Amino acid sequence: MTSSLDAAARADVLVEALPYIRRFAGQVVVVKYGGNAMPTSVGGIPADLSLFAEDIVLLHSVGIKVVVVHGGGPQIGDLLARLGIESRFVDGLRVTDADTLDVVRMVLVGKVNRELVAAVNVHGSLAVGVSGEDSAFIHASATSAELGYVGDVDAVDPSLLLRLLDSDLIPVVATIGMDDGGQAYNINADVAAGAIAAAVGAEKLVYLTDIEGIRKDATDPASLLSTVSVDELEDMIVDGSVREGMIPKVRSCIDAVRAGVGHAHVLDGRVPHVLLVEFFSRSGIGTMVTR
Amino acid sequence: MTSSLDAAARADVLVEALPYIRRFAGQVVVVKYGGNAMPTSVGGIPADLSLFAEDIVLLHSVGIKVVVVHGGGPQIGDLLARLGIESRFVDGLRVTDADTLDVVRMVLVGKVNRELVAAVNVHGSLAVGVSGEDSAFIHASATSAELGYVGDVDAVDPSLLLRLLDSDLIPVVATIGMDDGGQAYNINADVAAGAIAAAVGAEKLVYLTDIEGIRKDATDPASLLSTVSVDELEDMIVDGSVREGMIPKVRSCIDAVRAGVGHAHVLDGRVPHVLLVEFFSRSGIGTMVTR
Amino acid sequence: MTSSLDAAARADVLVEALPYIRRFAGQVVVVKYGGNAMPTSVGGIPADLSLFAEDIVLLHSVGIKVVVVHGGGPQIGDLLARLGIESRFVDGLRVTDADTLDVVRMVLVGKVNRELVAAVNVHGSLAVGVSGEDSAFIHASATSAELGYVGDVDAVDPSLLLRLLDSDLIPVVATIGMDDGGQAYNINADVAAGAIAAAVGAEKLVYLTDIEGIRKDATDPASLLSTVSVDELEDMIVDGSVREGMIPKVRSCIDAVRAGVGHAHVLDGRVPHVLLVEFFSRSGIGTMVTR
Amino acid sequence: MTSSLDAAARADVLVEALPYIRRFAGQVVVVKYGGNAMPTSVGGIPADLSLFAEDIVLLHSVGIKVVVVHGGGPQIGDLLARLGIESRFVDGLRVTDADTLDVVRMVLVGKVNRELVAAVNVHGSLAVGVSGEDSAFIHASATSAELGYVGDVDAVDPSLLLRLLDSDLIPVVATIGMDDGGQAYNINADVAAGAIAAAVGAEKLVYLTDIEGIRKDATDPASLLSTVSVDELEDMIVDGSVREGMIPKVRSCIDAVRAGVGHAHVLDGRVPHVLLVEFFSRSGIGTMVTR
Amino acid sequence: MTSSLDAAARADVLVEALPYIRRFAGQVVVVKYGGNAMPTSVGGIPADLSLFAEDIVLLHSVGIKVVVVHGGGPQIGDLLARLGIESRFVDGLRVTDADTLDVVRMVLVGKVNRELVAAVNVHGSLAVGVSGEDSAFIHASATSAELGYVGDVDAVDPSLLLRLLDSDLIPVVATIGMDDGGQAYNINADVAAGAIAAAVGAEKLVYLTDIEGIRKDATDPASLLSTVSVDELEDMIVDGSVREGMIPKVRSCIDAVRAGVGHAHVLDGRVPHVLLVEFFSRSGIGTMVTR
Amino acid sequence: MTSSLDAAARADVLVEALPYIRRFAGQVVVVKYGGNAMPTSVGGIPADLSLFAEDIVLLHSVGIKVVVVHGGGPQIGDLLARLGIESRFVDGLRVTDADTLDVVRMVLVGKVNRELVAAVNVHGSLAVGVSGEDSAFIHASATSAELGYVGDVDAVDPSLLLRLLDSDLIPVVATIGMDDGGQAYNINADVAAGAIAAAVGAEKLVYLTDIEGIRKDATDPASLLSTVSVDELEDMIVDGSVREGMIPKVRSCIDAVRAGVGHAHVLDGRVPHVLLVEFFSRSGIGTMVTR
Repeated sequence: MTSSLDAAARADVLVEALPYIRRFAGQVVVVKYGGNAMPTSVGGIPADLSLFAEDIVLLHSVGIKVVVVHGGGPQIGDLLARLGIESRFVDGLRVTDADTLDVVRMVLVGKVNRELVAAVNVHGSLAVGVSGEDSAFIHASATSAELGYVGDVDAVDPSLLLRLLDSDLIPVVATIGMDDGGQAYNINADVAAGAIAAAVGAEKLVYLTDIEGIRKDATDPASLLSTVSVDELEDMIVDGSVREGMIPKVRSCIDAVRAGVGHAHVLDGRVPHVLLVEFFSRSGIGTMVTR
Repeated sequence: MTSSLDAAARADVLVEALPYIRRFAGQVVVVKYGGNAMPTSVGGIPADLSLFAEDIVLLHSVGIKVVVVHGGGPQIGDLLARLGIESRFVDGLRVTDADTLDVVRMVLVGKVNRELVAAVNVHGSLAVGVSGEDSAFIHASATSAELGYVGDVDAVDPSLLLRLLDSDLIPVVATIGMDDGGQAYNINADVAAGAIAAAVGAEKLVYLTDIEGIRKDATDPASLLSTVSVDELEDMIVDGSVREGMIPKVRSCIDAVRAGVGHAHVLDGRVPHVLLVEFFSRSGIGTMVTR
Repeated sequence: MTSSLDAAARADVLVEALPYIRRFAGQVVVVKYGGNAMPTSVGGIPADLSLFAEDIVLLHSVGIKVVVVHGGGPQIGDLLARLGIESRFVDGLRVTDADTLDVVRMVLVGKVNRELVAAVNVHGSLAVGVSGEDSAFIHASATSAELGYVGDVDAVDPSLLLRLLDSDLIPVVATIGMDDGGQAYNINADVAAGAIAAAVGAEKLVYLTDIEGIRKDATDPASLLSTVSVDELEDMIVDGSVREGMIPKVRSCIDAVRAGVGHAHVLDGRVPHVLLVEFFSRSGIGTMVTR
Repeated sequence: MTSSLDAAARADVLVEALPYIRRFAGQVVVVKYGGNAMPTSVGGIPADLSLFAEDIVLLHSVGIKVVVVHGGGPQIGDLLARLGIESRFVDGLRVTDADTLDVVRMVLVGKVNRELVAAVNVHGSLAVGVSGEDSAFIHASATSAELGYVGDVDAVDPSLLLRLLDSDLIPVVATIGMDDGGQAYNINADVAAGAIAAAVGAEKLVYLTDIEGIRKDATDPASLLSTVSVDELEDMIVDGSVREGMIPKVRSCIDAVRAGVGHAHVLDGRVPHVLLVEFFSRSGIGTMVTR
Repeated sequence: MTSSLDAAARADVLVEALPYIRRFAGQVVVVKYGGNAMPTSVGGIPADLSLFAEDIVLLHSVGIKVVVVHGGGPQIGDLLARLGIESRFVDGLRVTDADTLDVVRMVLVGKVNRELVAAVNVHGSLAVGVSGEDSAFIHASATSAELGYVGDVDAVDPSLLLRLLDSDLIPVVATIGMDDGGQAYNINADVAAGAIAAAVGAEKLVYLTDIEGIRKDATDPASLLSTVSVDELEDMIVDGSVREGMIPKVRSCIDAVRAGVGHAHVLDGRVPHVLLVEFFSRSGIGTMVTR
Repeated sequence: MTSSLDAAARADVLVEALPYIRRFAGQVVVVKYGGNAMPTSVGGIPADLSLFAEDIVLLHSVGIKVVVVHGGGPQIGDLLARLGIESRFVDGLRVTDADTLDVVRMVLVGKVNRELVAAVNVHGSLAVGVSGEDSAFIHASATSAELGYVGDVDAVDPSLLLRLLDSDLIPVVATIGMDDGGQAYNINADVAAGAIAAAVGAEKLVYLTDIEGIRKDATDPASLLSTVSVDELEDMIVDGSVREGMIPKVRSCIDAVRAGVGHAHVLDGRVPHVLLVEFFSRSGIGTMVTR
């Protein structure tokens, strides 16, 4: 496929990638995958999942310690529908009773997480799926009485993830939390990704989404920001430029960067190999959040 | 609850346990949990699961490296029924198509495994749930063309489990295997437990069942064997004394002991704390398989 | 001997012991053995010494790092008498001249210490006897000119003991100290035990005595204290409730707990397996000294 | 400079490089630099040396353990000429007396080696120059009485090089050897490179030359071999297809591959970034020598 | 005291010592101290003990791993006499009953060992006294029924000694052995030293005695052998040249050298600093036993 | 050669050396060799170089971590003369243009350094020659525009030297520095030695010169100072007692001691084995600089 590229052009790309590869080697990067962009088919490994997995393996192969965090909204809805479970909503958030939690957990841990792990592991024995219940590493409590088993992150114990990273493995995290009594909670994956990035001391937190980045004006594609500071983002939440579904991502970017994460990124997951192009070329794409 | 025991009686129990605690410290024990004895309720942690978890934590706390392996037959049937998926059977074995495999995996990895992990982790950050897809550690291939995604174990790579054990964690294994192409397979949990025990160099392989042990005459409770050699067991399979559901367990006992596992045990999982009584007193209970 | 206990009762004891075994694993415990309770016979290993050794080995086998400290008053008196050496006393304390010191050292290091080491080592290669002269780890100086070679502890260098503990060995300490010039001193074993507990960062300091514990009123067995704080003990010394031979023990408890030791205990060494019952059951026995 | 390449093309190059980067990470590669292709100017870092250094740093940055070996024929001739030292030749080889050896060593160790080290180290603290006298790692003896201090390699002790590689450094080797008496010898750099590759257990031995590779017919550019086995090369030496200056290289390729080196390569050092294109793309360039 | 030596003479001694210091660094040397040469006084550290200790510390300070083994015949006799214990002799060997063993152990472990430890430790925290009961490292059994608790060495477990040596400490060994039942035995120190040297893989075994070495003719000082092979020594035992008290030493030299010890030495312990002169100069003194 | 010394005298020297050997073991010592005292012959290893190397190896063999630093003034002048390069001088300092720098580097790195390395390595695989360009460990910049490539030390990164020392090797340093752009500079070796001593945390910095030490009055041999404080030396620079060539050495002594080096020494390199006599006897020779 690269037949049209001559040796010189290929060399140029590799040479440009050099300082970035060197700079990021050994550093931890947390990548939040998914949401709407994720496939829902049951069989095989869909093409875009496969592309994503290839990028993760490439980052890993040049010494970057990658943690993948994922949600699974659409697939959860599918199974609830198939089981005829109807959801009640409070302020637009799904109330999660015990039966719903069971479904959420089966889909996130037993389906979405598995597909990600399998997609990575066709390249080698690399990915290990975990949820916040494993060694109880995401400590959670109920967000509110009305919402049932929807949880907030109280604390992230990074030791399991760091141990896996030190063993040269790629943790893939389903965002179920747990309290001291063994009760599970469903955690917003965008928020969990930010808390995990802060806990493991990540250099980068990356959100792969289905938009090109953060816009100054949400309705104007031309207002895409290539870099933005946490203070500017705070103002944009206040003045309403950042809206709805973007708020958990943007707030998590702010919190993570303030907690010591080097940079946060919002990238368009639909662009093939967007992670490689962002990480390993002089002019990144999407939006970078700086201190 | 031990109020009726005076200090001397309590001391006697502890003193008797001493040589066994010392002997097993640092050794690996694989415990196959479940099957019919396992609860199917969705909420909280059922009492017998809780007792089992307590035993696992006790074994761990005195330095035994425990690997838990589980199946989940009844719960799989429940979800298939709720989803209206009807199964075809060949020679009494369920044909596993892609949709069924999806359900199997969700139940084993996303539900049964989670409940075991949570039950252990109310005692501390100890258990980590894995399936054979994680770091691709159970390599599998199709048992036969007719059965679909039912798999045989081709190889077990012990490194992930050993790494977790060395980190003082308790791996809880859902027996999904994987081939080089990323395809998942459902593996018989009894068989997988034996293969895992051999791969990790276990001192003991324990099957917790709903019978008291292996009987010389399957229909005569009085014929319970307290020890039996692998050669005697071979004969009992040939002469029909070992039948049906017991065959995978008994065959796995034979294979594991021949592959270097110290002893295999078939114990009655309905007896409270059966693991403690078996491990830590002079006169064990159930059946012990020896070389 | 436990034949009268059924599996359930045995399981109960083990289950009750679990949280304590887990809690103390890896922690250092200093046990002061003896004094009057110790046997003086020359041959074989006396029964109560054997019981004590068994307890020490049990504690060790579940991961507790045990340091044993002992005195040897009665045996010293025996040998002095046999050799016809008469002692002068000042304020009730034996004046220790060079010849007496030689006897003290031979009895403590060459007899009592040996009997303890041998009693433990019939269970395995576990105990190593040391005195404060070994790698000069108890630095001492003369208590007063009149008393001769009776010494006070100036400093305890914990490195030799910690090295032995890290090698999974059980140090058994005879309380001879040494000064820079190589001169040996006889140190009060109760006091040395407290100083050692503080130096090695012990979680527990245990005095095995021939009384049930500390009494509020020394003459009233019914006034036994099950817990007492260091401040209360200070008051009890001042008001005379703590008397004579108990003062070095009680003062050492206070000093050790103030220097960071978790708890100090005064237990009745005549109760068989008193250490096991104290450490591994909900309701301990004897007196526990708290901050 | 890569402005004409879009994100997709750049991604393609990186993706193609992935399996090679993964495969070679952690392996040792010995690169023989130079000979006629090397610049002789005294000031600054010449462009082609700079390009070479960049490639070495890139290989290093993706985890390849690189050893650089160099000669310095032309520069030696220059200094001998400036000093008015005339050389006697035997069978076309320069007789090396003490004065000539002094010049050889100054040029190789004090000039050529320094320029390579400096060229690499503008990218970071990476290169360390060594000669075979350092920790006496190249043991040599006189090739023949007539040639003076021209030496053969008797043994290569890999420990210094391995230690530097383990410290993430890039050894740059000037091929002076030493005997037990401290006498230095000038060693043919092509031969030394092969002996070093065998001693350190290299995966690859690469000769950078000023021809495109090995030709079946030395006079016919169209007869360039892309792969050739050691047996075929042996035949080519016998039948005269390999001639003159190529013989030490080709013989060293054969010996190194027979001694366990994975592959040997003869590449055209005049092609910019030839190492990157050879290592990191599906279709290498130049000649690869296989077993 | 060295005032009469000028810088050049001092330098010469140090330069001569260099190759020996280098050669022996990191190697294990077992030194059997004593017997008749040892002082019996109770107070302080006698001069010759002090000189010996100084040598041991010097050997240690240049990286030699020294194990000291000692006996204590004369001091044992003293205390037996003071206690009025009369000994029965069989074939010239003292019958050791329980009471006598108690005295032997007190003297060896509680007195002679202590004096050696203290003498070394005035130079730093270096020596640790052990007996074969410590971690049960000398396994022994009765030599014969008539002799009581006189024992033969069945096995030496080197791990405690090696651990102390690895911690940069100097083990000082009193030669009491122990059987599985915890019974102690008095072991001939010459024999124990040889067994220890073999078990720890010593480079040298040195006997410090009160003669200048081994003589070809026991009655002729002029027949002192400077080196002798184990075969020659065997012949000398057979032909009666080696007699009485020398036999255990000579036999132990033979056994140790045959078991892999580099060299054994018989030196005159009355020569000040004899160890230094033997180890660190070209022409040793005394007798060296070779293979 | 020591035949005239009897055992007692030899023992005395070794005993006196003991506390010093013990004290310096494991500490870092930086020795500046040379200048005028160094030989200029091309062949073999001159006698005084050989003596110096022997001392370095002796220090190393008793656990001292030695770094050798050297200059090479006379040899540089020789080669410049042979090449007919004439030097311009500014304030008595040679202006170093690119051509001169090339000569300086060839002589220091390719000749003087090699001779030192070879002289040490006849004793074993011990010395590794480095210059400040290796892993860019001496960071330098131009002293002044007029002087060309004469450099000042900006920073010394001790990691390469410490790594070599930890590998039990002896770094031999040629004092060429390097800037970020890869430009080399000639550094005054006396000054570099002081900066290196401070950076590696040396216990001692030793200047071997051709005078007996520092004199109170430069013209009066009888005014030799055996110890002098840094404050006194400051005064001596101000009042002119320290002059010319001694100023860089004396200033470096002051700076190094103020930066944490234990002591600095100025010794007469013409005295055979002066390092041994200084290090290992009670009364050192030459001048010691103290805080």
